[in-house]
Amino acid sequence: MSRLTYEQFQAQRAEFLRDEESRALGADIVLTEDEQKVNEWLMKLKKTELDAGFKTPREFAPARHFFTVLEQIKASPLFQLIQRMPKGGILHAHDTAIGSMETIVKATYREHLWQNGEFDRPTPPNYKFSRTKPDPLDGVEWRSVADIRKELGNEGFDQNLRDVFTLFDEEPSQAYSCINHIWGKFQYMFISLEPIVTYKPVWEDYFRNSLEEVHQDNVCYLEFRGVLPAVYDLDNRVYTPEEVVQIYYDIVQNFKQTHPTFIGVKLIYAPIKFADDALFDTFLDTAESLHQKFPTFVAGFDLVGQEDTGRPMTDFNERLLRMSPTIQFFFHAGETNWCGLIDENLIDVILLGTKRIGHGFAAVKHPRVLEEIKKRNICIELNPISNQVLKLVDDYRNHVGAIYFSDNYPVVVSSDDPAFWCASPLSHDFYMAFLGLAAARQDLRLLKKLALNSLEFSAMSKAEKAEAKLKWTVAWNSFIDQTVKSIA
Amino acid sequence: MSRLTYEQFQAQRAEFLRDEESRALGADIVLTEDEQKVNEWLMKLKKTELDAGFKTPREFAPARHFFTVLEQIKASPLFQLIQRMPKGGILHAHDTAIGSMETIVKATYREHLWQNGEFDRPTPPNYKFSRTKPDPLDGVEWRSVADIRKELGNEGFDQNLRDVFTLFDEEPSQAYSCINHIWGKFQYMFISLEPIVTYKPVWEDYFRNSLEEVHQDNVCYLEFRGVLPAVYDLDNRVYTPEEVVQIYYDIVQNFKQTHPTFIGVKLIYAPIKFADDALFDTFLDTAESLHQKFPTFVAGFDLVGQEDTGRPMTDFNERLLRMSPTIQFFFHAGETNWCGLIDENLIDVILLGTKRIGHGFAAVKHPRVLEEIKKRNICIELNPISNQVLKLVDDYRNHVGAIYFSDNYPVVVSSDDPAFWCASPLSHDFYMAFLGLAAARQDLRLLKKLALNSLEFSAMSKAEKAEAKLKWTVAWNSFIDQTVKSIA
Repeated sequence: MSRLTYEQFQAQRAEFLRDEESRALGADIVLTEDEQKVNEWLMKLKKTELDAGFKTPREFAPARHFFTVLEQIKASPLFQLIQRMPKGGILHAHDTAIGSMETIVKATYREHLWQNGEFDRPTPPNYKFSRTKPDPLDGVEWRSVADIRKELGNEGFDQNLRDVFTLFDEEPSQAYSCINHIWGKFQYMFISLEPIVTYKPVWEDYFRNSLEEVHQDNVCYLEFRGVLPAVYDLDNRVYTPEEVVQIYYDIVQNFKQTHPTFIGVKLIYAPIKFADDALFDTFLDTAESLHQKFPTFVAGFDLVGQEDTGRPMTDFNERLLRMSPTIQFFFHAGETNWCGLIDENLIDVILLGTKRIGHGFAAVKHPRVLEEIKKRNICIELNPISNQVLKLVDDYRNHVGAIYFSDNYPVVVSSDDPAFWCASPLSHDFYMAFLGLAAARQDLRLLKKLALNSLEFSAMSKAEKAEAKLKWTVAWNSFIDQTVKSIA
Repeated sequence: MSRLTYEQFQAQRAEFLRDEESRALGADIVLTEDEQKVNEWLMKLKKTELDAGFKTPREFAPARHFFTVLEQIKASPLFQLIQRMPKGGILHAHDTAIGSMETIVKATYREHLWQNGEFDRPTPPNYKFSRTKPDPLDGVEWRSVADIRKELGNEGFDQNLRDVFTLFDEEPSQAYSCINHIWGKFQYMFISLEPIVTYKPVWEDYFRNSLEEVHQDNVCYLEFRGVLPAVYDLDNRVYTPEEVVQIYYDIVQNFKQTHPTFIGVKLIYAPIKFADDALFDTFLDTAESLHQKFPTFVAGFDLVGQEDTGRPMTDFNERLLRMSPTIQFFFHAGETNWCGLIDENLIDVILLGTKRIGHGFAAVKHPRVLEEIKKRNICIELNPISNQVLKLVDDYRNHVGAIYFSDNYPVVVSSDDPAFWCASPLSHDFYMAFLGLAAARQDLRLLKKLALNSLEFSAMSKAEKAEAKLKWTVAWNSFIDQTVKSIA
């Protein structure tokens, strides 16, 4: 046995670090001179927060619960820079949880809205738009929201509504006892929110506003999961999934005309996995029909809902394999802490030929899954804040994305349901990913790579991607120019 | 693009699962017929807890803080079976934190013990054995512990002492605000405890009792880190490190005679890393001297103390490389959540030629480190409960050991400082590793592999290992026999 000389040691150490650096996500990006200037500034801001955190860990935002650092992040110059950055697309987000809850609050000022039940009860109130008072629900009379507003005052009513329709809590560790508890509230929120948001005028407003906020957050593309619920109007008309998609499609066309730098939107049809076989079969029929009618706007198929308590993929595999082979899959899988149980969904979705994996949190405990992800170039859609709020992980530095970043896995950073935790459409997740998940020395190349990946791994066609990349590059260069000027 | 047929899918799925199973730690173990019977029983017990946890996550022990599930674990038949199992050796534990605190409580009944300061203050009291009252400390008079016992009653005094000398708290998430906070108390405990435990009669008692408890926990070998503090007696004699090692050595020889199934003990000299260069040089001198005098009993060298706040390895590398090449290294590294900062100690210790890595928690974020660990067969000493209590990880299912188990990394499970968190010498860590870290289907083969690894990766010589394996096998077979009988 012998030891290295110190010279040998230093040489091997340098090589070791170079090797690790060369394997990290974004290492292949070569920065221009101007980008290097922006990078220096970016890394100065990052280092400031890292140094402070290293000294006082309890003040490091990624070591804490998101709800307790919202204000701190708002004041962070690093966050502000990331906000201004063209971040590419959002590839994992859910229909009614993208745009901020303020649109919903505003919607409740509309006439014809009724409430059943009260605030501050274990289950939130029910809502419904109707010209006339709906029939009592379990013996309880509906009341006009306009009347309740008069009682509580607008401010009081609005605050109650915000409490109902976000998971925000000042003491999150006290508020939610376990993953099933918070998922219970989370899923109930979607259900309770539905009769407000599916009222056609609100539905259109909410979606338009979501696009506006996405655009404002410097995100130029959106690929979202939609359950396609029954949209309705005051004439008791109920819109079919095909009609709902048409509403989406028309709004997108219009939005693109008024926002020429915005690249576009695609929809992944993603009904809930808590479905019996008969209901599931109707989902498949709908998927086929949408695929025929909207072959490019509807990008593919997925299933949503808490994985731990939902039906496993093994219940669905056989029928999924019989779907038209041109329907692409974008499955959630491995959004769990369990190992060797429901996380085996990861294996199913890979063999089903999924194009991307939503979350893939449990994949790190499956060496073969990791191999197949690289081999098949399956993109993992990371949603850091979602995973913390929904109790998969406590400290962002322990998020599995850190592992994917360190070894160049095909990943994007996305936001899942940002409105439900008062986050911006994408910037907060990018901030946590950059400061909490990434290694200290990972820099602008990582962020640029994440933006490029979000276009590359999208469901856009080759031609669409080329155009998207052009538009994004214009925005990126303009961001670089402006930032260079501002720091000069 | 085409899809698999369902038959192809099922065949590929089976192959996928077989492949993953074949890569897991312990997959190479072939169980005898009797072992298979024990395995069935073991897996029945495991499944019971997994099923209950899957249904009600908040009641799943590995999803909660260790302090809140101590009683629950005590009642677990799975834990009781693991307790009875011959677990091999403990390769990572610290001198004065192995044997339970009751030995310390008992020690304070000895005469000549003095206390300075009071309970329930931000800093714990100081203690000292002395024939006569020591000089005041910062103006504060010492009081005889016998007198304080009379005032508080034995029960009150003992309970105060337990509060001072363990990290136990009924509301751990409230008690410690961050990693530096709990490490502050943790390190102060060692310091405050030292003048009690280093009183020669207590020192000998404590170590003997530690071995007794290790043995009782069905652990047959111990390789522990020692700082070798200044042991003293009532005649003001202060024992040198060499003399302290001799005390250890003599006790071990005696213990082996009275406990013929116990394999033995080795010591890793591990002074604190909060040392200036001059002090550090004395450590190196001591290490060389011990290596000469106790070439087999003193197995090697390490440094201890909180990694985040301690000096980085880069401060020490040059001098460590000049140490006698026959001194083996067993360094702590990567006991941190940071990435690209102090965790780079991992790279240093690998290039220094470390035989094992203490914790290696951060290694999963370093792909090259992972490769080198396998290539060089460097054993990672996992300490699951320590990592939770000292705030690296919240939920055991997120412990990086899960990743190491899934892909057959060279690892052992150890316990670090079990007495400080009221754990048994090894069984609680084995329980958490088996139920929380391991995949649902990992079975007796994992536990047997961990036991065998603890002998294989020890610092024992080839001949010692052969003898150790013989002795362990006798104990293991007897455990299997007895268990088969008890479940028949």
